[in-house]
Amino acid sequence: MDIRSSFESLDKKFTSFGGLNGGGITRLLYSDEWSNAVHELKHTLEKEGFEASFDSVGNLKGRIEGSKYPEETIMSGSHIDTVVEGGHLDGQFGVLAALVAMQSLKAEHGQPLRSLEVLALAEEEGSRFPYAFWGSKNFFNLAKSEDVNDIADGEGINFKAAMNNAGFDYRNEDNDYSYIKSFIEVHIEQGKVLETEQKAIGVVNGIVGQKRYTINLKGEANHAGTTPMGLRRDAVVAFSKIATELTDKARTIGDPLVITFGRVDPVPNTVNVVPGEVTFSIDCRHINQEALNDFAKTIDDCIRTVSEQEGVEYDINLWMDEAPTMMDESLVKVVEQAAEQVVGSNDSKMMPSGAGHDSQIFAKYIPTAMLFVPSINGVSHNVTEETNIEDLVKGIEVLKQVLYQLAYEE
Amino acid sequence: MDIRSSFESLDKKFTSFGGLNGGGITRLLYSDEWSNAVHELKHTLEKEGFEASFDSVGNLKGRIEGSKYPEETIMSGSHIDTVVEGGHLDGQFGVLAALVAMQSLKAEHGQPLRSLEVLALAEEEGSRFPYAFWGSKNFFNLAKSEDVNDIADGEGINFKAAMNNAGFDYRNEDNDYSYIKSFIEVHIEQGKVLETEQKAIGVVNGIVGQKRYTINLKGEANHAGTTPMGLRRDAVVAFSKIATELTDKARTIGDPLVITFGRVDPVPNTVNVVPGEVTFSIDCRHINQEALNDFAKTIDDCIRTVSEQEGVEYDINLWMDEAPTMMDESLVKVVEQAAEQVVGSNDSKMMPSGAGHDSQIFAKYIPTAMLFVPSINGVSHNVTEETNIEDLVKGIEVLKQVLYQLAYEE
Repeated sequence: MDIRSSFESLDKKFTSFGGLNGGGITRLLYSDEWSNAVHELKHTLEKEGFEASFDSVGNLKGRIEGSKYPEETIMSGSHIDTVVEGGHLDGQFGVLAALVAMQSLKAEHGQPLRSLEVLALAEEEGSRFPYAFWGSKNFFNLAKSEDVNDIADGEGINFKAAMNNAGFDYRNEDNDYSYIKSFIEVHIEQGKVLETEQKAIGVVNGIVGQKRYTINLKGEANHAGTTPMGLRRDAVVAFSKIATELTDKARTIGDPLVITFGRVDPVPNTVNVVPGEVTFSIDCRHINQEALNDFAKTIDDCIRTVSEQEGVEYDINLWMDEAPTMMDESLVKVVEQAAEQVVGSNDSKMMPSGAGHDSQIFAKYIPTAMLFVPSINGVSHNVTEETNIEDLVKGIEVLKQVLYQLAYEE
Repeated sequence: MDIRSSFESLDKKFTSFGGLNGGGITRLLYSDEWSNAVHELKHTLEKEGFEASFDSVGNLKGRIEGSKYPEETIMSGSHIDTVVEGGHLDGQFGVLAALVAMQSLKAEHGQPLRSLEVLALAEEEGSRFPYAFWGSKNFFNLAKSEDVNDIADGEGINFKAAMNNAGFDYRNEDNDYSYIKSFIEVHIEQGKVLETEQKAIGVVNGIVGQKRYTINLKGEANHAGTTPMGLRRDAVVAFSKIATELTDKARTIGDPLVITFGRVDPVPNTVNVVPGEVTFSIDCRHINQEALNDFAKTIDDCIRTVSEQEGVEYDINLWMDEAPTMMDESLVKVVEQAAEQVVGSNDSKMMPSGAGHDSQIFAKYIPTAMLFVPSINGVSHNVTEETNIEDLVKGIEVLKQVLYQLAYEE
């Protein structure tokens, strides 16, 4: 079978579920578009000889039984939901890549020694309801009904009502994941490192830890004309010094440290008043926990020092503090070797993932690895999200090689 | 007569027109509160022996004829309107100070050699309609009916309808101001320079020129996790560098240069996206035109250089460019000497006004001077606007001394 044409026809079919006129997909958890997609995927899996089944919340597995070690299962997949006006590759590519790679292996090599499973996770994006990773958190029995019982979507539809309406419900017993030996997720990079460095494959060594802060600086609002510079307590000037200093320091430390001041809300935010207050965000990520913690100290020190210099009061609220997740070392090596075989060592790159993925949940319980394909101009969460078909095919071929090694070799 | 008690009783009376429960005044142009205030002021002037008259738009003059040089008139006053929820001193104090000073002179010294006039300008704040300086711009035949014909207040009431309803109308002939020899305006400082330096009187040598800009920086919005620092075109980082550098430079140059970044609007303004765009304001003021122009060049250079460094595109829109207005040198000397006599040279300070005032219009046509009294904590345009009564009295006494010299001495 031809990997490219198989993928293209599957991608075309599944992009139609929630597909938008200008390209891209809106396919929110438990929506009609989502239901149509997962039921069609179950049908496709069955037609292709997979044994397909949903768990209670709607995670879909398709299984090819192994001949020699059926109790050892090699799993690959990603999430099937999208953000609002998302692209056709974020999540969906990982599901279809797994399906195509396993189809191709079966066509070429017949039944594997170990079992193979495709996984389509119900939800990862947190785009319909204010809860993310619903799929993988149910997979590992982490999600609780209390977490979502009282939440509703933008139209006021309750989580449970939406779930029941789609034919699914809370877990009534724990999911068994002990039979899974390895999990491999293929995903688009959603950044432009691979494109910039002209690499075809990213071998992901880990998913960055991140800290997110809301900082409030309080100075004094004053008349912009009658208040000399020396009598000001200007919150925006204090913010600017903090953002400039921390950016300089982060640049000096270098990759993979990133810091972002995405939100800035001065008060009163008008041309002729010295801004007496500003609330701003910091998003800081690093693959190494110690390096991340060190920079968090730098952040605290900088805010304190600048606030003292500028005569403003500060409040630092660290409201997200997620540890980095390392991928399984030996599995990463398998992916790295497969990438070398398929695209050559010059065309692949070992890199951290700066974004969160289902694999960060899996890696806590199961040896897990990820591989990236390039994103054109780094665009994702957007209908123009795209990857060259040649790169998509290379991604599937690397995955196929990884699965071959894990499921077909002794 | 006692200056303090005269002022206090007038201030109490006029603060009741638009007076608010928590203190302060809302007295917008041509409102009922405004009408009641100006008609009561006319009545008060007449009762005190002034010859009182409105011009067509509602500027109110009260005149004491001079005995020897009646055609030479010394005028003092300010505006009678307030901002929404303004204080009881901004504008009103200048009108009442003129009235009390002239009453006191008349009581002590009888008829002046030159004529004296109190002036209550109809409007300065631009708070009801989007047009400021309506009073002084009519006084000097600058305002045109076309400027306001199509404008309305927040409730949709047309400017002309409001004016007619209050009993006033557009000028049907030019106002004659040639008979005025000098204009003196007393005003609260609206800043805290005098308070900080423990001075009772500010002798205003000029009103600062100001340039106001809207700057747009366009970089590229990117994922905050997947975009390394080196691949970013972060508009907020560029803004922060510009604000930091220009603030440093302005501090080095020193008073009376001020620069304010009052408004900052990043796009999309969310925690986990590298901000691809920011729109911000610059308000820059200086009393010296050359120094202001020099700093405007510094602003341009800094924005260009930082934008190039940070890979963002910039657009600079200079939408206000007002020249500094110098007060009349010999009149400033008269005020300075009067302040020295009343409070001593240690308790007065020569200073620019960082805010705009009616005097900036007057100074273009008539020898003009201003004097400031301190504002407690620099607060103005707020119901808590206040000045110690001792300082208000000192301001009236300095004005009285100035008017004595100008109207009673040969």
